[in-house]
Amino acid sequence: MRLVQFQAPHLMGPHLGLESGNGGGVINLNAFDPTLPKTMVEFLEQGEATLSVARRALAAQLPVLPRSEVTFLAPVTRPDKVVCVGMNYVDHCKEQNVPVPKEPIIFSKFASSIVGPYDEVILPPLSQEVDWEVELAVIIGRKGKHIKATDAMAHVAGFTVAHDVSARDWQMRRNGKQWLLGKTFDTFCPLGPALVTKDSIADPHNLKIYCRVNGEVVQSSNTNQMVFKTEELIAWVSQFVTLYPGDVILTGTPPGVGVFRKPPVFLKKGDEVQCEIEELGVIINKVV
Amino acid sequence: MRLVQFQAPHLMGPHLGLESGNGGGVINLNAFDPTLPKTMVEFLEQGEATLSVARRALAAQLPVLPRSEVTFLAPVTRPDKVVCVGMNYVDHCKEQNVPVPKEPIIFSKFASSIVGPYDEVILPPLSQEVDWEVELAVIIGRKGKHIKATDAMAHVAGFTVAHDVSARDWQMRRNGKQWLLGKTFDTFCPLGPALVTKDSIADPHNLKIYCRVNGEVVQSSNTNQMVFKTEELIAWVSQFVTLYPGDVILTGTPPGVGVFRKPPVFLKKGDEVQCEIEELGVIINKVV
Repeated sequence: MRLVQFQAPHLMGPHLGLESGNGGGVINLNAFDPTLPKTMVEFLEQGEATLSVARRALAAQLPVLPRSEVTFLAPVTRPDKVVCVGMNYVDHCKEQNVPVPKEPIIFSKFASSIVGPYDEVILPPLSQEVDWEVELAVIIGRKGKHIKATDAMAHVAGFTVAHDVSARDWQMRRNGKQWLLGKTFDTFCPLGPALVTKDSIADPHNLKIYCRVNGEVVQSSNTNQMVFKTEELIAWVSQFVTLYPGDVILTGTPPGVGVFRKPPVFLKKGDEVQCEIEELGVIINKVV
Repeated sequence: MRLVQFQAPHLMGPHLGLESGNGGGVINLNAFDPTLPKTMVEFLEQGEATLSVARRALAAQLPVLPRSEVTFLAPVTRPDKVVCVGMNYVDHCKEQNVPVPKEPIIFSKFASSIVGPYDEVILPPLSQEVDWEVELAVIIGRKGKHIKATDAMAHVAGFTVAHDVSARDWQMRRNGKQWLLGKTFDTFCPLGPALVTKDSIADPHNLKIYCRVNGEVVQSSNTNQMVFKTEELIAWVSQFVTLYPGDVILTGTPPGVGVFRKPPVFLKKGDEVQCEIEELGVIINKVV
């Protein structure tokens, strides 16, 4: 299933829906069952009960809102946390001349940086070095602490596409070299278009992953190149913190970012960034 | 006013209340007005409307639940963000031989690390160097971006006491020197006992601040020693991110932490840490 949060002119506020296939229209889950919550975090908190309603909705022949009539929101908003992983593709370590980490490197974005799959990324006047990073994002479906790698997939609701927009000046040289500020400007975490449930993906660790800037491919890899896979990341992070339904884990970016090009290239007003992952879909964010 | 979140055996789930003075009993705000929300974040989101109800409740002669009959929760839970400031007391910079920063150093904890004012701090098996840090915490009352320092206090709901528990091994030597993991273990952010509204504090930047471990004073300073005050911190952080009602800003710790002692001292099972700030109150957390 492809779960989405969306708005439409005839509906009050955010609603939960199903994308009828990658790039298709939207089925209104709240119209199918008015007792369903209207946010993804609450939907996920109810676990199998709400998921089975969504499956029934998909099987029923329900009206599909044309894509042109809805606004896609991020599939998750206001999660407890957005966990990020640094240097998690072998070739991305090579391009910055750092050794492949022996343990995952964990940093974070604030949930306030999340925007929808087709929303604008706002260049902050404070930064001159805003860069792209396409990433596979894991969305947690079940609460857990000290989760074993072998149990980790039972805690995953699904996957989505993330753009880990990064202000390199603030990440690398300012703020006492703590990456947070460079990673968490408002609009620096486009997500979507859908939370694709894990049962709908053949293998999350064998998906082509791309970033295109103004149509030119700047990142092209496969999630099989990740150093630490979903299971290991969940096991690692849950040694430190309890994971809650809706928590988002950005699993790191492949090579091809702008800052390590010679000369470096950064995003400018008017650029259009497309982040795409096979089976999950594409998010398209204009830089303004 | 001293706003609290609490539970009691005869009540279902968390409730909002008023502490009847520092160390006093609790007035049940949800009993006074059943239309009030039951969480502080929602209460703050409604702004002056809900604050005026709380003021009316305080003026009415309402029953006061004895302190022994209630469980105090953190005054804010599940905020959008917990923003932390590093090296924000002049003497704390001196004790670690670093220059006083020219700009605030910003890092974060996940909201999942928040616990109540009398809850236990759990020593994680992963760390051998868990340290104390008493801090003044600011709680945001009104949404804002690019807030001017001169307007900043209008965005503050009030203040509370925070314990920025810190695993120095993970903060300083592991995780690629990103501080997040060392700061965000579950239970590493005790808060409370109350959100003291700004109108109830003579001057938040002239409050005695203490930390005691097993009764011995280990930190003793005054919030007038802060390098960047509340107004400057809000102006700084809101250049990067939108602040939302309920957001918490930990404003840094004075000197006297364990890691810079000779030899270093760390918390061990059975220790009791008291963090106290004049006018705000004391939080007492046993280490287990």
